[in-house]
Amino acid sequence: MTPIANDTFLRALLREHTPYTPLWLMRQAGRYLPEYNATRTRAGSFLGLAQNPDFATEVTLQPLDRFPLDAAILFSDILTVPDAMGLGLRFAAGEGPRFERPLRDEAAIEALRVPDLDRLRYVFDAVSQIRRALMQDGRQRVPLIGFSGSPWTLACYMVEGQGSDDWHRAKTLLYSRPDLMHRILAVNAEAVAAYLNAQIEAGAQAAMIFDSWGGTLADRAFQAFSLDYSRRVIALLKREHAGRRVPVILFTKGGGMWLDAMADSGADALGVDWTVNLGEARKRVGARVALQGNLDPAILFAPPHCIAEQARAVLDDFGPLRAGDRVGHVFNLGHGISQFTPPEHVAALVEAVHAHSRTLRS
Amino acid sequence: MTPIANDTFLRALLREHTPYTPLWLMRQAGRYLPEYNATRTRAGSFLGLAQNPDFATEVTLQPLDRFPLDAAILFSDILTVPDAMGLGLRFAAGEGPRFERPLRDEAAIEALRVPDLDRLRYVFDAVSQIRRALMQDGRQRVPLIGFSGSPWTLACYMVEGQGSDDWHRAKTLLYSRPDLMHRILAVNAEAVAAYLNAQIEAGAQAAMIFDSWGGTLADRAFQAFSLDYSRRVIALLKREHAGRRVPVILFTKGGGMWLDAMADSGADALGVDWTVNLGEARKRVGARVALQGNLDPAILFAPPHCIAEQARAVLDDFGPLRAGDRVGHVFNLGHGISQFTPPEHVAALVEAVHAHSRTLRS
Repeated sequence: MTPIANDTFLRALLREHTPYTPLWLMRQAGRYLPEYNATRTRAGSFLGLAQNPDFATEVTLQPLDRFPLDAAILFSDILTVPDAMGLGLRFAAGEGPRFERPLRDEAAIEALRVPDLDRLRYVFDAVSQIRRALMQDGRQRVPLIGFSGSPWTLACYMVEGQGSDDWHRAKTLLYSRPDLMHRILAVNAEAVAAYLNAQIEAGAQAAMIFDSWGGTLADRAFQAFSLDYSRRVIALLKREHAGRRVPVILFTKGGGMWLDAMADSGADALGVDWTVNLGEARKRVGARVALQGNLDPAILFAPPHCIAEQARAVLDDFGPLRAGDRVGHVFNLGHGISQFTPPEHVAALVEAVHAHSRTLRS
Repeated sequence: MTPIANDTFLRALLREHTPYTPLWLMRQAGRYLPEYNATRTRAGSFLGLAQNPDFATEVTLQPLDRFPLDAAILFSDILTVPDAMGLGLRFAAGEGPRFERPLRDEAAIEALRVPDLDRLRYVFDAVSQIRRALMQDGRQRVPLIGFSGSPWTLACYMVEGQGSDDWHRAKTLLYSRPDLMHRILAVNAEAVAAYLNAQIEAGAQAAMIFDSWGGTLADRAFQAFSLDYSRRVIALLKREHAGRRVPVILFTKGGGMWLDAMADSGADALGVDWTVNLGEARKRVGARVALQGNLDPAILFAPPHCIAEQARAVLDDFGPLRAGDRVGHVFNLGHGISQFTPPEHVAALVEAVHAHSRTLRS
């Protein structure tokens, strides 16, 4: 078992006592960092960066060298799995992701298969390489998080072919041919589970499922088309590896109303966005899961003293943590950090979270 | 008191018994109707349509002539008030609304005033004219709804200058200079109240506040910067006019988690989007308010038999209504109808809601 210098993140996810609230930031390796932009320029493109283990390792470690963050997260894209299924992922300049061959007819859906994991070898190589790069004086600095899009979130892009305001095509398929949508989701669930297990075997010490678009679904449709398939993924995951429990985090943006059902998904922790009151969420999930979140990323545009005040308010909302409490909190944003965030504002956030959470525990 | 042939909508909002669940659709006069597009072509532009009482009357009545809807809603834009404040509303071809003079500095915010209501005369003239056009055989066919954007939703556009994914500028102002944001919201609340009261005096028989962007706010910020100002508007509204109670509907898209606080806003009814389970919402708000919603507009892309099935499920979620129950339900979509909706699918929806809700009451 590799010793980890700072394992507060893993312990908080497992609802064990920690001296302060650990934090990391969704998209912490990203365009708000000048060093990231420099690496991306050298890589030539986003996919050139994400698909090259050397570059992926470099950018994964950049935010850790700037800020005392409590976890590293694999630098990759959420759409690697459908790309490996043959849908042809492309990023046009200044635009979001697009698939060259979206699922537009029954034949394409029937032909969909769990991809050969060899096509995702570059991801697992990056995980192993990041793990090695995290070693310092014989210990791993912080744990490494692996991740995937949820089966539903992948299906949104696979049917639509690109991002959408209303997921018109994906929802039309869901309501008019639920059998076909279930077929896509069943393949996706199996593929996502295999993909995350391979990341865990390569060295990922926690797994996060990004259900970015679950919150666009209607009540009832969310349970049947998003949550049920995330649950299926979680049931298939390796939960112990290399002598440690591998915690799983399920994050549905806009899913605050469904936390009670999500707490029974098998996940160790639930990610929540900024519309959720953490104290109320804590009451609702009880001792079933830890919580991760939930500062509005827009707060990072305000001056450092405002950021510190709002970060303290989030910690206060969650409330005190005493030794023996079977609850856990990992601080994060409620969504990915904006590319327009000044890096020094992130430093102010990290300091405020660490300092105030120590106070709350003393 | 003008007799109303079908007043089920008003009675449901006031939680009185109705023989079936009344329905109308947000943006029911809109681009999915060929007759609307024909009128818009004649008007030359969207603002040419919205600012001309003859055209506004014509398009307001179009959906009522096609479908047995239970209410009419004034055809107008949510940004008329800031336009009257001098911000300069424009619609570029194929784009959303833009302000020529957004609020970008302290001086502009200090100079902001409640507008002269004479600049909004075209809206009140449209209300009066629509009321006259609704008369048939000495009775008004259905009630007429007036509306406004909420103080927060107006502020979003006034600061940002146009629509946004993350309301970056509006939120930066909110967190870094809350005093200035409160100043904008105080002026907006007074202006919105005066605007809605003038619509009521001109003949609007219910008032709806569209808090389209309240759901993008963090918990705590929503209460302080959106809900508190909607409450202030509601407190200033005329609640009786021409011998009738004038019900107020407050709709916050993405506000499902805040229904309990919203139920104490003074509104008679709360609009809810499709992520909310109506049965649970009914339990939470109790006998304080009626509910309006909440079919996912994307369901209208599916075939008619699927639409009918999903509409019945929404009615079943709300549950039975017995004479003497102090609850009310107005059926609606959870957001505006898409321009890509086939009109015959709307006919299937209206029929299913009326038929199934009669069954639930028998």
